Amino acid sequence: MAQEYDLVILGGGTGGYVAAIRASQAGLKTALVEKGNLGGTCLHKGCIPSKALLRSAEVFATAKKSEEFGVITKDVSVNFAKVQERKSKIVDQLHKGVQHLMKQGKIDVYEGLGRILGPSIFSPTAGTISVELNSGEENEMLIPKNVIIATGSRPRTLPGLEIGGNVMTSDEALSMEEIPKSIIIVGGGVIGIEWASMLSDFGADVTVLEFADRIIPTEDKDISKEMQRLMKKRGVNIVTNAKVLPETLAQGEGVTISAEVKGKQKEFKAEKILVSVGRQANTEGIGLENTDIQVEKGHIVVNENLQTKESHIYAIGDVIGGLQLAHVASHEGIHAVEHISNENPSPIDYDLVSKCIYSSPEAASVGITEDQAKEQGHKVKIGKFSFRAIGKALVFGESDGFVKIVADEETDDILGVHMIGPHVTDMISEAGLAKVLDATPWEIGHTIHPHPTLSEAIGEAALAVDGKAIHG
Amino acid sequence: MAQEYDLVILGGGTGGYVAAIRASQAGLKTALVEKGNLGGTCLHKGCIPSKALLRSAEVFATAKKSEEFGVITKDVSVNFAKVQERKSKIVDQLHKGVQHLMKQGKIDVYEGLGRILGPSIFSPTAGTISVELNSGEENEMLIPKNVIIATGSRPRTLPGLEIGGNVMTSDEALSMEEIPKSIIIVGGGVIGIEWASMLSDFGADVTVLEFADRIIPTEDKDISKEMQRLMKKRGVNIVTNAKVLPETLAQGEGVTISAEVKGKQKEFKAEKILVSVGRQANTEGIGLENTDIQVEKGHIVVNENLQTKESHIYAIGDVIGGLQLAHVASHEGIHAVEHISNENPSPIDYDLVSKCIYSSPEAASVGITEDQAKEQGHKVKIGKFSFRAIGKALVFGESDGFVKIVADEETDDILGVHMIGPHVTDMISEAGLAKVLDATPWEIGHTIHPHPTLSEAIGEAALAVDGKAIHG
Repeated sequence: MAQEYDLVILGGGTGGYVAAIRASQAGLKTALVEKGNLGGTCLHKGCIPSKALLRSAEVFATAKKSEEFGVITKDVSVNFAKVQERKSKIVDQLHKGVQHLMKQGKIDVYEGLGRILGPSIFSPTAGTISVELNSGEENEMLIPKNVIIATGSRPRTLPGLEIGGNVMTSDEALSMEEIPKSIIIVGGGVIGIEWASMLSDFGADVTVLEFADRIIPTEDKDISKEMQRLMKKRGVNIVTNAKVLPETLAQGEGVTISAEVKGKQKEFKAEKILVSVGRQANTEGIGLENTDIQVEKGHIVVNENLQTKESHIYAIGDVIGGLQLAHVASHEGIHAVEHISNENPSPIDYDLVSKCIYSSPEAASVGITEDQAKEQGHKVKIGKFSFRAIGKALVFGESDGFVKIVADEETDDILGVHMIGPHVTDMISEAGLAKVLDATPWEIGHTIHPHPTLSEAIGEAALAVDGKAIHG
Repeated sequence: MAQEYDLVILGGGTGGYVAAIRASQAGLKTALVEKGNLGGTCLHKGCIPSKALLRSAEVFATAKKSEEFGVITKDVSVNFAKVQERKSKIVDQLHKGVQHLMKQGKIDVYEGLGRILGPSIFSPTAGTISVELNSGEENEMLIPKNVIIATGSRPRTLPGLEIGGNVMTSDEALSMEEIPKSIIIVGGGVIGIEWASMLSDFGADVTVLEFADRIIPTEDKDISKEMQRLMKKRGVNIVTNAKVLPETLAQGEGVTISAEVKGKQKEFKAEKILVSVGRQANTEGIGLENTDIQVEKGHIVVNENLQTKESHIYAIGDVIGGLQLAHVASHEGIHAVEHISNENPSPIDYDLVSKCIYSSPEAASVGITEDQAKEQGHKVKIGKFSFRAIGKALVFGESDGFVKIVADEETDDILGVHMIGPHVTDMISEAGLAKVLDATPWEIGHTIHPHPTLSEAIGEAALAVDGKAIHG
């Protein structure tokens, strides 16, 4: 049977389901097609479960060092089955929440694999969706006025480094039944560093092999440097400039693998390997070949309004590449729907997107780095303020890290804000709002940050841009 | 011997020492007179030590419930001597920091009691400062062009409820050697609630007697209500509409005191009483009688530039009343110095000051409450978003509370932002900046809040103002 819709969304991850809610608010008759679980990678294999494990790791670390706070604990240990159980419970609760939101928005959810058909008896243009239902029933035909492709991504691996045995991506790692004694993490980007932090907190012996000359290489150099210092301080072995040689992988009791480090071949041994070398867009099997939609370097090509070459078919989220963050996907979803509804939304400015790393310490940033600013020809001025001079950081018991603000010396524009330290992921939104509103460092510096809070470091860093930090 | 200065500051608390640093930056020859410890109430008897105790209480509470995170701990207990030792260490470290900043700024610090003299051989106007040195040496005479009075405040008590024995203010409570089994807290304002939270976390049986019909009565009603609900849920006994009868106090093994509760006299018993009924300005003994400076209702009267009736003598911080917060004092100090230096600063807008409560849960707010907005004639629209729908709150393990935004329906101005829940004291500055920059709810809602963070609740509450929350 064929059903008509204003909008059909392929993929019920953060991008897709948020788009569906926004579409429902806008009065569009909307269907969502998802072959797996509503909530997608973020909810089931990414942000949420990994943060749940990180939180347990944090509680474990806090309990172990509780004596410095005057709290006596004995025989602190981890019941990893319980850790996993808690993680699953949180995921289930949020999953039910998304299901509820779909019902509340009167969004039709089709459980199955959606494929875009070419021009057919249903429609003179490409875009009819054929849904191969998980239930095995006859395919559903959905005839939409507009389509949003939000099929997401999956972990990438290195050619030759096959998943299986002791080799995992984050997908497999999330369902580990016990904490490995030792692990090699291939890739020191955001995901690699979060896992390094968590597993090290849980007691694993962690080695990170990073191809670039620094970990988290897309962040400001000072942030990479401080993160590396703090990771090393807590015992994580970080090897940069390391080109992993997949062909040297040998699995047995554990694994060994070699990497070329500054011209020399070195061997690394551990119980497990976690491969975290980025994510690959899910562009296959969804019928793109039936359309004029272009795929370049593995990602669907879209214009600034997120339209593909078929202007009634949009694409959002990881499948179009870019930052590949859940909050970007959801805002792209909102944008696409507002464009479909003729609400004339402004194109998303990706320089305004905050990025977070949930390791211990946390890191967060918005805008461009000092190096990027210089490459773009800005004459920069820098304000930097350490958490060491922030009373609340001492009280909290974590005073490593800093806030760094990169501003343009001539225009006084804030170009980037980079933070590493306690709770910075919850504080970056002040900087995000400052960027959105084109605030100057002076305006942030003269905003009265309450005392004693960690956020004072942002105010002081802003004052420091013009040499006027109070506690600096 | 007489020393000449551009500026002499009476009182080295947060207001005074920050003013001194700003004065040093502005090139003023500056002296600071402090008879106690640099850092004042905030550092030694207020914000910092109380937050240190609260943090230990939080670690204790986390360790006790660690099993829900999959972390096994045994025999969790508090070594209160160690808790106090940690507190003192943090205070010492920050105290040394302030001393260092004074040296770095080349600020002369006089340890002693400063008194303002009237017109004399040193100066035709009032304002010469005579310092009675702690060392017992001969008084110093300081001849300043300008003076800032920053002598702060001390805990108020109720007439008849004398401090001593089992009756304390927060000053005495901070040096308690052990946690009382039970305590009556007279006053359910910010300080009372922080102590109630902390002592309850540490295992004390806590009763709060509040005169008004709700605790933290200066906050938005919804915040009071949620705080009361959550405090009761964890076992704190809260009695509102309770008029304490000091004359009924009886001390022995413990204390008993009666209060009139809704017309009926009720008796309360506990090991200790903590009186937290506000703070009293320190206006005595500093020579105000030698000047034209006016004191009204116990506070020094100043104009919008913080000048007293003697225009070269300024007053800042708790001694002028108002919000009596450390960050207000420091910004008043900065304002006074900038006015002295002819930098033409804009008057402080007290509606832009964030207020924090560091209990568990935390609360924080900026701007006016819903009731105040209505009283002022605004037609309001409200956006409210619960932490229950925020993934990171579930991950963190605390999903009680909400963010509430009060906006003007006609102008779209944000009138107030009120938050209760995890880490809100570190997140209120986004709302503070929004107020400073006159942001609309739309601008906050369209700022991409990173996922998964607690700050998403702010974005969602802003969208909710216009009925467009995604997860609501």
